[in-house]
Amino acid sequence: IQFTYLPGDGIGPEVGAAAMAVLQATTQRFGHTLEAEHHLVGGAAIDAGEKPLPETSFESCQRTGAVLLGAVGGPKWDHLKGADRPELGALLPLRKRLNLYANIRPCKPYEALLDRAPLKRDRLEGTDFVVMRELTGGIYFGKKGRDAEGAYDECRYSESEVERIAIKAFDLAMTRRKKVTSVDKSNVLETSRLWRETVERVASRYPQVELEHLLVDAMTMHMLTRPTAFDVVLTENMFGDILTDEASVLCGSMGVIPSASLSDAREDQRVVGMFEPIHGSAPDIAGQGKANPLAMILSAAWMLRLSFGLNPEAAAIETAVEQALASGDVTGDLGGTLSTDQVGSQIADRVR
Amino acid sequence: IQFTYLPGDGIGPEVGAAAMAVLQATTQRFGHTLEAEHHLVGGAAIDAGEKPLPETSFESCQRTGAVLLGAVGGPKWDHLKGADRPELGALLPLRKRLNLYANIRPCKPYEALLDRAPLKRDRLEGTDFVVMRELTGGIYFGKKGRDAEGAYDECRYSESEVERIAIKAFDLAMTRRKKVTSVDKSNVLETSRLWRETVERVASRYPQVELEHLLVDAMTMHMLTRPTAFDVVLTENMFGDILTDEASVLCGSMGVIPSASLSDAREDQRVVGMFEPIHGSAPDIAGQGKANPLAMILSAAWMLRLSFGLNPEAAAIETAVEQALASGDVTGDLGGTLSTDQVGSQIADRVR
Ligand SMILES: CC(C)[C@H](C(=O)O)[C@@H](O)C(=O)O
Ligand SMILES: CC(C)[C@H](C(=O)O)[C@@H](O)C(=O)O
Repeated sequence: IQFTYLPGDGIGPEVGAAAMAVLQATTQRFGHTLEAEHHLVGGAAIDAGEKPLPETSFESCQRTGAVLLGAVGGPKWDHLKGADRPELGALLPLRKRLNLYANIRPCKPYEALLDRAPLKRDRLEGTDFVVMRELTGGIYFGKKGRDAEGAYDECRYSESEVERIAIKAFDLAMTRRKKVTSVDKSNVLETSRLWRETVERVASRYPQVELEHLLVDAMTMHMLTRPTAFDVVLTENMFGDILTDEASVLCGSMGVIPSASLSDAREDQRVVGMFEPIHGSAPDIAGQGKANPLAMILSAAWMLRLSFGLNPEAAAIETAVEQALASGDVTGDLGGTLSTDQVGSQIADRVR
Repeated sequence: IQFTYLPGDGIGPEVGAAAMAVLQATTQRFGHTLEAEHHLVGGAAIDAGEKPLPETSFESCQRTGAVLLGAVGGPKWDHLKGADRPELGALLPLRKRLNLYANIRPCKPYEALLDRAPLKRDRLEGTDFVVMRELTGGIYFGKKGRDAEGAYDECRYSESEVERIAIKAFDLAMTRRKKVTSVDKSNVLETSRLWRETVERVASRYPQVELEHLLVDAMTMHMLTRPTAFDVVLTENMFGDILTDEASVLCGSMGVIPSASLSDAREDQRVVGMFEPIHGSAPDIAGQGKANPLAMILSAAWMLRLSFGLNPEAAAIETAVEQALASGDVTGDLGGTLSTDQVGSQIADRVR
């Protein structure tokens, strides 16, 4: 198992170390060898006198095709402009240059965390959907700048960009409850009308999958009033950014949500992917050993499953995380008393 | 009191009739005369062989400077394209041509509705904020279309567009708890960076007002986890569309939320404004006498206050609505047994 490990900034290295301990235990138990290529990214790279995404880091990602990322950014680098910033200079180029167009984030609250969510328990019970977010197009990557009249950002989508992410969503729905909810703003945006037409064309090839369309504004409500109604939620880049953060609230904590950003399979069949927690670098608690490593550990599990096809290995980690949550062996943010390291070694022990 | 009344589509005419009954009672009690110019808009205009926004309707709006709007749109007109559609052909041009750049939507849950919201009561108690949404710029009104590569929508803001809405937000905050939360996506968008710079410049003229910035994705979470922390939420057009719908869930029902879309004052001091419920035309329940008219009635109250400066009159209506909610004299969606008309005449009686 050869992959690129980019700890990044803030709590990234701490939660990363916990995830590495779990990966070590898992590969040991299942008889694999682990080969992690450590590289700098984000503010950590800037501080070392490099660009936010050093070419050596990128080359490693490209070679291994499997990237485990902690987090990038923080107030220390907020004064930087444009592509000098960790987010714009590292995260977005990684997504674009690795062609990671399919971002997957789950929303399936753990029983042990149900009461932490601001929503009433009876509304949440049974919620289990994933958001399939387009990650390399739209307003994130369109022309942007200033001119005499002010500032502008262009949102663009081509039919093929919409088609390939729609196919990923329908393929995923086929392995689940066979429902796709496509979210757009087609009553206002031309890109959304192209989105809707294209999704409908793709849907016609999946007669067993039910398709519904929702406007993004309505979706922010439905996600809260009928979260159990969704299976696969398909949407464009900016709407996906907004809706996945909203969805994280249903789970009671951002600290347990992994994500995968996938491309297509390479010639050697490896699905190129980057795996990272959806939480950020949390600079306010960095270096104190309090960061919750579960999202990072689950991201490592997703890497095993989605990039290396190691299903039992991934499941072993996921079961261990569920047990840790159920028995309260967690960090302070979830009401436990353990440190980041302790959670990591606990889960590693459970896997062993 | 001379204003333009645009009932529009779906439940628009029903909730409009209830609001008109309340306005009638209010003006009677306070000794004003009521002169409503009824005009067609949206699908209703299309069905009458006109454009979605007939010139005679628009001229009336421009003349009176005070518009009470029901709702526009519905599946009947969903096959139409572009500016032939009710939303794009009537609602957006009304906003743009009347220069209604400041959209205000409140989020202050009624005690009687707290338990209807999917959020836990203890999280909601004390919530009281308003969203100040920029309504005539951004991606709604930028260049949009198709070309060989696909579809595009341009998001644009000029400094003066941001400045004038920021001033409205800070002015409003001065009359409230003196806090502005500006929401943008400045880690990705150039328009958001212009937004943030301009808001900071305006803020320096209001030293008593506290300013915080939040990224739009984070805001969808904070709105659910700490809704009581907000006072005035300032944001651009598309983010405002999304966030105000999310906020409506906190109130337990969309059916009680009015909105005002304001321009500057005219030479005769009249603040040009359009007032409408935030709910849509609800075609599925139209014509059955079940539609909840409270949001429309409250929109009429806002018209009295904001366009005509009639504060006691507006307050009389708002008190009556609160009493109706407290005593359960409401429509079925809120657990009552009354029809749309009955709620209207109940509130009218209470005002009298
Ligand atoms: C850090 C930021 C650029 C990023 C995004 O907007 O995509 C983040 O919010 C995310 O969702 O991964
Ligand atoms: C109907 C639609 C064009 C409109 C908008 O997006 O502004 C509506 O959602 C609103 O919020 O008033």
